[in-house]
Amino acid sequence: MASYLITGASRGIGLELTKQLLELPVSQVGKVFAVTRSGPSAPLRGLIDRNPDRATHIIASVDDTESVQRAARDVKAKLGGQGLDVLVNNAGQQAISPGGTKTAPPEQLAHLFDVNVIGPQRVTAAFLPLLEAGNQKKVINVTSSMGSIAWVDRYKCAPSPAYKISKAALHMLNAQYALDHAEAGFTFLCVSPGWLKTDLGGEYADFDVGVGVTELKRIILESTKAQNGKFLNILVPGEEKSRGQYDGGEIPW
Amino acid sequence: MASYLITGASRGIGLELTKQLLELPVSQVGKVFAVTRSGPSAPLRGLIDRNPDRATHIIASVDDTESVQRAARDVKAKLGGQGLDVLVNNAGQQAISPGGTKTAPPEQLAHLFDVNVIGPQRVTAAFLPLLEAGNQKKVINVTSSMGSIAWVDRYKCAPSPAYKISKAALHMLNAQYALDHAEAGFTFLCVSPGWLKTDLGGEYADFDVGVGVTELKRIILESTKAQNGKFLNILVPGEEKSRGQYDGGEIPW
Ligand SMILES: NC(=O)c1ccc[n+]([C@@H]2O[C@H](COP(=O)([O-])OP(=O)(O)OC[C@H]3O[C@@H](n4cnc5c(N)ncnc54)[C@H](OP(=O)(O)O)[C@@H]3O)[C@@H](O)[C@H]2O)c1
Ligand SMILES: NC(=O)c1ccc[n+]([C@@H]2O[C@H](COP(=O)([O-])OP(=O)(O)OC[C@H]3O[C@@H](n4cnc5c(N)ncnc54)[C@H](OP(=O)(O)O)[C@@H]3O)[C@@H](O)[C@H]2O)c1
Repeated sequence: MASYLITGASRGIGLELTKQLLELPVSQVGKVFAVTRSGPSAPLRGLIDRNPDRATHIIASVDDTESVQRAARDVKAKLGGQGLDVLVNNAGQQAISPGGTKTAPPEQLAHLFDVNVIGPQRVTAAFLPLLEAGNQKKVINVTSSMGSIAWVDRYKCAPSPAYKISKAALHMLNAQYALDHAEAGFTFLCVSPGWLKTDLGGEYADFDVGVGVTELKRIILESTKAQNGKFLNILVPGEEKSRGQYDGGEIPW
Repeated sequence: MASYLITGASRGIGLELTKQLLELPVSQVGKVFAVTRSGPSAPLRGLIDRNPDRATHIIASVDDTESVQRAARDVKAKLGGQGLDVLVNNAGQQAISPGGTKTAPPEQLAHLFDVNVIGPQRVTAAFLPLLEAGNQKKVINVTSSMGSIAWVDRYKCAPSPAYKISKAALHMLNAQYALDHAEAGFTFLCVSPGWLKTDLGGEYADFDVGVGVTELKRIILESTKAQNGKFLNILVPGEEKSRGQYDGGEIPW
């Protein structure tokens, strides 16, 4: 009966993960804190209404330190002395610079770094005491294989230099947390959910959101301390040789 | 008779590189543009006074887009129709968070990203037209092996999470520039100059600044298009097995 907190739960991957977790038996998934930066979206509202004992809506903008710290106090009160088991840093943004890396404006680089890197830093730091009191001690950073420097050639045609930079930076954040908290029994993971049809992924993406989130959920549930610090890919049979190399293996930095 | 532009030339590595380049024959190194964010330091002033035909002082703060663009216009005028051959993005800052990754404040993360990543972006983007008109088309991003995610364990005791994150992000910036401009004949490199005794490196560093800069200079001079996109280490005989693994090889991402 593990507890989960998911940022960016209004739509896309975060909403689907909230939904899929709530479909699991209570013995496996207890409370789910669904974090959005404004009131719950209609589908999230529906999920919460159908699971009033398990699903809780929490407000926080990952780019606003005060709102994140307030959310941590809210969740602490709602957990009534229990710890938090699993934190999923999912909220994120992408941005396009069609003219190549040289055209990525300073403001865009700074903004994506603020949301995609400092965001997870704000959330992780604020929830760490609750995670320390939890049993599973898992932190999942939802990232992208587009943040792999080693794979940069594969995504040459994806005109999002600032996004790739922010995800590479997120990987170093994850690596350092993994190292700092290994002895305390934590599992910090970077997971690439695949190219999915969401507002961010667009309509030409490789898979429906359910496909990638089924895998993301499996990786979260099956993950162990032995994987602490790793960067994992989803497994989609028949797609191991595609550009996304969806082989369930480790993605190189 | 190549032309060079070096940021952060007031002190430390940038000052030493400016000095060492000016010791080379004019047939090898022509004009050297030494960029600082305020008036030249006394040692830089001395170097310029002794090399009035080759060394030029340029003002720019890498965290100020307008000042960087103004510097590019200045340099263009001073080159009188010639291109720029080599750009060395050296200016950088470090910051300490002794309480571990969780204590790295948002402002520190944002500031180091601004100076160490958006800084090179501002400078590279502004000078790219001049580099395109140059013969060598080399851009050297001075980074640190502490920015290697694969080597994160080695630097567990270095309490500078924001610095490591900024350098990992810089590597992705470099990788994307390397890809974008490979066909135009560019060489974009990340070079780790070794742990050097400068204000940033501190007094306990592995080597005097001259040792690392001699190697940095060698790597710059010997580099070819075949190395485009790589992350290179200095070579210090007898130190190949040290933590810094100064074997002149490639550092993993
Ligand atoms: N879709 C893909 O193909 C793909 C591939 C690889 C990785 N990812 C990663 O997966 C994560 C989710 O992406 P997605 O495809 O689900 O994107 P999406 O459909 O655009 O949803 C993004 C989510 O993040 C939230 N968000 C954005 N900025 C926020 C902020 N400052 N504070 C709090 N929440 C914020 C959004 O909230 P609002 O509704 O309030 O805007 C929304 O819930 C991201 O980290 C993304 O990088 C996606
Ligand atoms: N020393 C080492 O052990 C070591 C190891 C690996 C990598 N590095 C890298 O080497 C580079 C130089 O480091 P260093 O050891 O020479 O450091 P340093 O002695 O502290 O000098 C830093 C230089 O960067 C300049 N600078 C800082 N912020 C700037 C800004 N916003 N705009 C323009 N210039 C700015 C400084 O100018 P002011 O004088 O005006 O402050 C100074 O010239 C950095 O990128 C660093 O990360 C150093």
